[in-house]
Amino acid sequence: MKVGIIGATGYGGADLLRLLWQHPEAEEIITYTSSKQDLHIHESYPHLTAMYEQKLEELDAQKIASEVDIVFLATPPGVSSELTALLAQYGAQVIDLSGDLRLEDPDTYTAWYKRPSASSNLLNQAVYGLSEWNQAQIKEADIIANPGCYPTAILLGLAPLIKEGLIDPNSIIIDAKSGTSGAGRTPSLMTHFSEMNENFKAYQVNTHKHIPEIEQVLKSWNDKAGAITFQPHLVPMVRGIMATMYGVSIKPTSEAELRGLYEETYKESRFVRIRPAGSYPATKEVYGSNFCDIGIGYDERTNRITVISVIDNVVKGASGQAIQNWNIMNGWDEATGLNVVPTYP
Amino acid sequence: MKVGIIGATGYGGADLLRLLWQHPEAEEIITYTSSKQDLHIHESYPHLTAMYEQKLEELDAQKIASEVDIVFLATPPGVSSELTALLAQYGAQVIDLSGDLRLEDPDTYTAWYKRPSASSNLLNQAVYGLSEWNQAQIKEADIIANPGCYPTAILLGLAPLIKEGLIDPNSIIIDAKSGTSGAGRTPSLMTHFSEMNENFKAYQVNTHKHIPEIEQVLKSWNDKAGAITFQPHLVPMVRGIMATMYGVSIKPTSEAELRGLYEETYKESRFVRIRPAGSYPATKEVYGSNFCDIGIGYDERTNRITVISVIDNVVKGASGQAIQNWNIMNGWDEATGLNVVPTYP
Amino acid sequence: MKVGIIGATGYGGADLLRLLWQHPEAEEIITYTSSKQDLHIHESYPHLTAMYEQKLEELDAQKIASEVDIVFLATPPGVSSELTALLAQYGAQVIDLSGDLRLEDPDTYTAWYKRPSASSNLLNQAVYGLSEWNQAQIKEADIIANPGCYPTAILLGLAPLIKEGLIDPNSIIIDAKSGTSGAGRTPSLMTHFSEMNENFKAYQVNTHKHIPEIEQVLKSWNDKAGAITFQPHLVPMVRGIMATMYGVSIKPTSEAELRGLYEETYKESRFVRIRPAGSYPATKEVYGSNFCDIGIGYDERTNRITVISVIDNVVKGASGQAIQNWNIMNGWDEATGLNVVPTYP
Amino acid sequence: MKVGIIGATGYGGADLLRLLWQHPEAEEIITYTSSKQDLHIHESYPHLTAMYEQKLEELDAQKIASEVDIVFLATPPGVSSELTALLAQYGAQVIDLSGDLRLEDPDTYTAWYKRPSASSNLLNQAVYGLSEWNQAQIKEADIIANPGCYPTAILLGLAPLIKEGLIDPNSIIIDAKSGTSGAGRTPSLMTHFSEMNENFKAYQVNTHKHIPEIEQVLKSWNDKAGAITFQPHLVPMVRGIMATMYGVSIKPTSEAELRGLYEETYKESRFVRIRPAGSYPATKEVYGSNFCDIGIGYDERTNRITVISVIDNVVKGASGQAIQNWNIMNGWDEATGLNVVPTYP
Repeated sequence: MKVGIIGATGYGGADLLRLLWQHPEAEEIITYTSSKQDLHIHESYPHLTAMYEQKLEELDAQKIASEVDIVFLATPPGVSSELTALLAQYGAQVIDLSGDLRLEDPDTYTAWYKRPSASSNLLNQAVYGLSEWNQAQIKEADIIANPGCYPTAILLGLAPLIKEGLIDPNSIIIDAKSGTSGAGRTPSLMTHFSEMNENFKAYQVNTHKHIPEIEQVLKSWNDKAGAITFQPHLVPMVRGIMATMYGVSIKPTSEAELRGLYEETYKESRFVRIRPAGSYPATKEVYGSNFCDIGIGYDERTNRITVISVIDNVVKGASGQAIQNWNIMNGWDEATGLNVVPTYP
Repeated sequence: MKVGIIGATGYGGADLLRLLWQHPEAEEIITYTSSKQDLHIHESYPHLTAMYEQKLEELDAQKIASEVDIVFLATPPGVSSELTALLAQYGAQVIDLSGDLRLEDPDTYTAWYKRPSASSNLLNQAVYGLSEWNQAQIKEADIIANPGCYPTAILLGLAPLIKEGLIDPNSIIIDAKSGTSGAGRTPSLMTHFSEMNENFKAYQVNTHKHIPEIEQVLKSWNDKAGAITFQPHLVPMVRGIMATMYGVSIKPTSEAELRGLYEETYKESRFVRIRPAGSYPATKEVYGSNFCDIGIGYDERTNRITVISVIDNVVKGASGQAIQNWNIMNGWDEATGLNVVPTYP
Repeated sequence: MKVGIIGATGYGGADLLRLLWQHPEAEEIITYTSSKQDLHIHESYPHLTAMYEQKLEELDAQKIASEVDIVFLATPPGVSSELTALLAQYGAQVIDLSGDLRLEDPDTYTAWYKRPSASSNLLNQAVYGLSEWNQAQIKEADIIANPGCYPTAILLGLAPLIKEGLIDPNSIIIDAKSGTSGAGRTPSLMTHFSEMNENFKAYQVNTHKHIPEIEQVLKSWNDKAGAITFQPHLVPMVRGIMATMYGVSIKPTSEAELRGLYEETYKESRFVRIRPAGSYPATKEVYGSNFCDIGIGYDERTNRITVISVIDNVVKGASGQAIQNWNIMNGWDEATGLNVVPTYP
Repeated sequence: MKVGIIGATGYGGADLLRLLWQHPEAEEIITYTSSKQDLHIHESYPHLTAMYEQKLEELDAQKIASEVDIVFLATPPGVSSELTALLAQYGAQVIDLSGDLRLEDPDTYTAWYKRPSASSNLLNQAVYGLSEWNQAQIKEADIIANPGCYPTAILLGLAPLIKEGLIDPNSIIIDAKSGTSGAGRTPSLMTHFSEMNENFKAYQVNTHKHIPEIEQVLKSWNDKAGAITFQPHLVPMVRGIMATMYGVSIKPTSEAELRGLYEETYKESRFVRIRPAGSYPATKEVYGSNFCDIGIGYDERTNRITVISVIDNVVKGASGQAIQNWNIMNGWDEATGLNVVPTYP
């Protein structure tokens, strides 16, 4: 198949190029840009030298739709809502890595993103691409809203408890930590090396855009679910997200019982790995891979459950899950092109 | 005054040497060791070259008590319980940086530390040296149990809410993050550079020894306080602790109101800095200093309060607070020798 | 084919497992150990969970030779000299990642490694596996001495100049920088995170074991070559080596001319990438891949040439080159299983 | 005395604020700005909260000269040449941390800095503030050109060899490594955390502006000195410079003999520490302090000398040496306000 990437000079786009290089169904890859036309991609990313030598092509929705079978959109907020509508109109399939198509309610989007929403029509067409849970819908979709990085780690970690009603959904507190790649490639004071190294920062206290995305899915799984507390932090590392999640168990339980539930839930999921007793995942253990590793704790003293979920934010939180969704859409093995061992150490 | 340090080859001891260098009351500093006698301290720590050139002296409690006015113990768990008793018997004042004398109840110590406790008699003599809150007792004490690094950041952050009864004490969840220096200088796989860089780890899920220490103090402040959830993590940095703390407000409130309370509470505290609206502290902003910086958030959607507290774990979490306590014991300005600007960037 | 790995719990071994996972000719992989028998490999390396689930097998040379077609030895210094002799005797092919078989002269080995050398007979059998330059011999070899990490970066960088006689071989100064993974997985004070982060260290001044290895090859290429200066340093990062090399040009030249020579020399080499004018490689641009990227500078003021060569020390400096050699030995495309894009950022 | 700082929002200026906080002669500190008037300094640098609360004042040379006794200029290239002339005209003493006044020859400045030079008159007035070597002139100066960070580490390291004529000055190769703080606080792709962490980069091959500064001083010490090779690199850390320097000994010698020379040379220098046999300095061992630590190696095989010199680039390479010069200008102990132990780990 022919693949188009819009936004290949961002980190999500660059990682799509890395993973698609090994994907047996990606026959040709064309990169498009709105602003950097004629730039050779390896001028922006020397690590791609001798692999991707092509120039960035002009962004023309009709032309793109005629040239490729699938378009990955790895663009900043606000671009996708318009572009996807056009691409869809010309018949292209779209997997959108931005947040523009994830929230079903336009008003919620506007309230949290502080910008106009995509049309309700487009939002209705888009399927939320949480690969492990929405396979049936993804298979039928033409437009995928690829989940955010934090929501991916969090939702995979909470799903068994929420779906089984084992946790009080209104007790959930999510303390999340991310590497800096999630902030993108545009330099800023916050992610300036001299400011970020030997430093640990909290940011966007109670205001992160991923909050309504998480709440929307939890609500769809369990209608008792309401507002959550979600607090992101920035870690002096590049790749990786850990979500440490706390909630009150609806009844006394045990780690073994909970772990059993998780193992059963994810026994067919190639990319979710449940840790054995006493073992908790670290972010580096999924580095560069599409895995989500999960550890479970239970404290009898407080009757609280702790779930620790890690992903590589650039892969399972963006490019890797996008490719997983592309695989599902086409009926291929969901691990096609993604069957790589994490790079460790 | 003459100062003795036992355990100067650990990070806590080395930082005492750094800070005491500038302390006008530290006339002479003698370093003692149980195992590395005759080692020059700068052989172990070249950064001390031309500043501290002396040898480590033999550890003999009676001799120490006769030579120095104050002994700082920066020793591994289990050493202090015996040594402090001896030193006290020979008349020395002791500031103990280990965890041996912090828990009032010997059984609790044994349950969490998995080793025999110090004698009840010794535990009764020891005053918990949380400088900002126990000044009166510290002033009268001969033996100080210097608080743990996590408890210091956490207790300073929670005190105003707990003491005023503004937070449900049984709703408290503490997600804490530390640099690796808290793990000490002994090499281990967990803190091996190749394992720790570009990595973020959770550890000791529901089992960290600082849990009973935190609970003991919270209980002493508010008898409704019970079991807390405290989860520590390791950050790929050396110095710094952040505690992100969550709890349910007993009534609807606002950030402004809460911030006002914190500013009022700590208005006389030289080392506690409350951040203005919209600003939250990062660990590097207290690097190398004795400050504890605190930011406050409130979420109307969940009625939860978020408190973010940072310290340099080696300073306010160990050596710096120890010196602050020494100052208080002697009636000196509590900031004597500690009035340093954080090293930034 | 069936593949055996001895020393799979070290970083070189772990990276072999990562790369062989994608190698179409590696049908089965058996891991052997001298000391950790019955350990599941993912207990030591959780990142391998769900991929490698087998136990480590007992190390018995005869059994190994009967079970597998090729043995990769990723063992500490001193192990290989004996083990390879045994494995060869029982008919196994061996690729040795240690330094035991690299030096042709036993006395030189003993002088630099401070231990007994392998037998001259074994040393004569071993072919030095610098893939880009020794293809013909590698193709015929049964025993490969896989080059050291520093020598790989350095020799690929110097080869065109030395072979063409364009640089005074006695003017060569090599200033090299490595990530900590080159020091292995055994914890030490030098590579303790708290000691290594925010730090840059020189080590083994004029005494590094790779010096005679580099000199031996340079001499084989140009008999005027003698003693070099090689100084390694440790960088606060995990993967990556940069060698910055300086030498006096035998005649006035230009960057363009020199770059032309490099491009010509390596035009058939899949894994050597020459940077265009004004561009110099950074270590991260080869992260996780088998590439060696080279940049060239020339200073008219001093008539000195600067060559900057980077590799991922764990891949091209160990596991990747080992697999490249295995490919060459078998007449497969040398990039089989190694055709991966560097992980960036 | 009253102290003025122009450029306090840069890292050099911020570190001046840190160090002057403890300087007994700095009675009042006024910060000036050309562009950020009325900003509170702690809004830009929260770590200064409760210490420096003042606003940045308007930059008016005449007013400044009337308000303060000394002006530290920590401004970008090109600002100082004009500003210093004005300040001097109004009678202020100036210590300039930029490179504008360091090169005696205006044409050399223009050739390397690609901008107009300061007037010859101003250049003649300025004294090069390499504290350890130019004390007599500094004592008489009204304008100090504070040395660059690299030149400081390099010149202190080479001085004994060059002055004694023990090294061939035309054989000198300097391979230098710096933390990112030397690149300043303005965000850039090169120093973006995601690009810089787990990365090691060379930059400005044969074109760095510190080359003529180093050559000028070497030439003043030994008229046989000519062009050097100087290659800077960027390390994934914030503070610290290491210069590894290589040169041919004019005669066979020994490490002991060389070390004796260094110890003798610097025996009165408070801030230069010579390492004992077998010990080489790491950058962290001078972190936050004004020390320059030096280790010496000699290789009989090549007759080359290796000198390894480390400083904290922000302190001895900028703010610390500036204060040291201020001390010397006033006849105070040169260590006044600078007598601090490095922060380790």
